[in-house]
Amino acid sequence: MTGSRNPAAAEGRPRGRVSRSSFRVRYGETDQMGLAYHANYLVWCEIGRTDFMRELGSSYAELERDGLLLAVAEAHIRYHASAYYDEVVHVETWIERAQSRSITFGYRVLRTDDDGETRLATASTRLIALDRDGRLRRLPDELRARFRAVVDGDG
Amino acid sequence: MTGSRNPAAAEGRPRGRVSRSSFRVRYGETDQMGLAYHANYLVWCEIGRTDFMRELGSSYAELERDGLLLAVAEAHIRYHASAYYDEVVHVETWIERAQSRSITFGYRVLRTDDDGETRLATASTRLIALDRDGRLRRLPDELRARFRAVVDGDG
Amino acid sequence: MTGSRNPAAAEGRPRGRVSRSSFRVRYGETDQMGLAYHANYLVWCEIGRTDFMRELGSSYAELERDGLLLAVAEAHIRYHASAYYDEVVHVETWIERAQSRSITFGYRVLRTDDDGETRLATASTRLIALDRDGRLRRLPDELRARFRAVVDGDG
Amino acid sequence: MTGSRNPAAAEGRPRGRVSRSSFRVRYGETDQMGLAYHANYLVWCEIGRTDFMRELGSSYAELERDGLLLAVAEAHIRYHASAYYDEVVHVETWIERAQSRSITFGYRVLRTDDDGETRLATASTRLIALDRDGRLRRLPDELRARFRAVVDGDG
Repeated sequence: MTGSRNPAAAEGRPRGRVSRSSFRVRYGETDQMGLAYHANYLVWCEIGRTDFMRELGSSYAELERDGLLLAVAEAHIRYHASAYYDEVVHVETWIERAQSRSITFGYRVLRTDDDGETRLATASTRLIALDRDGRLRRLPDELRARFRAVVDGDG
Repeated sequence: MTGSRNPAAAEGRPRGRVSRSSFRVRYGETDQMGLAYHANYLVWCEIGRTDFMRELGSSYAELERDGLLLAVAEAHIRYHASAYYDEVVHVETWIERAQSRSITFGYRVLRTDDDGETRLATASTRLIALDRDGRLRRLPDELRARFRAVVDGDG
Repeated sequence: MTGSRNPAAAEGRPRGRVSRSSFRVRYGETDQMGLAYHANYLVWCEIGRTDFMRELGSSYAELERDGLLLAVAEAHIRYHASAYYDEVVHVETWIERAQSRSITFGYRVLRTDDDGETRLATASTRLIALDRDGRLRRLPDELRARFRAVVDGDG
Repeated sequence: MTGSRNPAAAEGRPRGRVSRSSFRVRYGETDQMGLAYHANYLVWCEIGRTDFMRELGSSYAELERDGLLLAVAEAHIRYHASAYYDEVVHVETWIERAQSRSITFGYRVLRTDDDGETRLATASTRLIALDRDGRLRRLPDELRARFRAVVDGDG
């Protein structure tokens, strides 16, 4: 991404540390159009960032037990191609940006086959840090440092 | 149902106080078979008992804030006919049985049209009372009395 | 919105014909944070546009039977405040933009109480027209005219 | 199971060929009680039978493309213990019974840890065979033979 001054141009391109989650599309995730229902992609992104956090050594389940909640404040998703029942889809997850009170994840949803990979969707979600009572708080310094270390250009 | 000695024969027949909830099938509730996905019927039953409880004057949201959780311990559902996107379905809910530590709800899911009503599913769920820490507890006497008062034969 | 040259400024403000859908948050829509899970808002938006289309006299269920599919190509949502189990939420839906091959809906999710209304989320989704085989097609002229007639500034 | 004359006693015990599916509980699958929402177990059972069928060499996705639909006609589930966000759960799936027009699957949902395994739920679902128009049909002989071959006592 070096040199890019256009955030839109960069959207959807993995950078820095990238995790990959893989799973099959569930029957209950399809709709009568015969493909995966669009809202499920946000669920898939959540699988992606859960795995990303675990691999980073900061299990979200543990963070939450320690009193840090990360609530989705904004989501943006573009659908490029359809996903079908029982096919394996992959979610690539990375950090777009880490700030003092929020973190933005980027995602690519894709399938792979003999012809290479097909991009199904690209997405980003901005999460804000809350305490147990739902009040805005800062991300713990240690966690923020960990995030920053894996964002491209920062580490 | 008085006099019935065969519980199976009684299943699926509303009795005592019956509430009715109505809503349209959501697009996201369909699957690629072109009809409402079977797991959603359990969600619909939950709408039914939420409405039943509210009408009884014992909002489940309030009970939970007071420290009483009702967890589903068993569910049984029979599917008789399909439900389709955007059609209005109704859930009839009643109490099958109220005990000291559990309560069993009965449900009928149906559609109505000019030809009368079509039964889509019949179901029952048994819920157990838990405290905030997930331990079994007794239903409050006042609530149990309220349940019993609306079960056929008891009130 | 007439005269506005800044689309971002306009986002989230109802205009032209606006439909309102109302329903209660389901227990199964909550997550362990104690509030409605973020992906459900896309489902709620779908309820909103289903109702909008029906009120417009162009039931989406019928359009689909006639061979026109509207697939979500892009979704953007901002979360402003939380929604809770059993509370009534409203979705306001309107058309942001109608083009030859796509249509963009705008949404506001809100609760109302004695103090007025609280905005829970604002969203937009762009849908593209597909035929039964999943190929891009133009919106039928009649439908597009109907859309344009209810967009602010056009009708 | 040989010699058993009491079907209830047998419920929930794997027999014959058993498949095992494993996945993590998704955040969106939790509810405000802090554990996996009960309706999701039916979705998990579907993952189980999808995997069972694939391992049997009869991918359900392919069967459906060939015009055989298997619709859930009845489901029964007992919840024994709770499942939590991000923990790995396993679904064991087997065939309880194969008939000419229907097939009954059995399931056990469980977690495993150092202390062994904990049973979270036991379930069964009866599926009926439908053609593309939703009419009852017989299971193809070849498929039925395949089912029977893996049921305990039959093969």
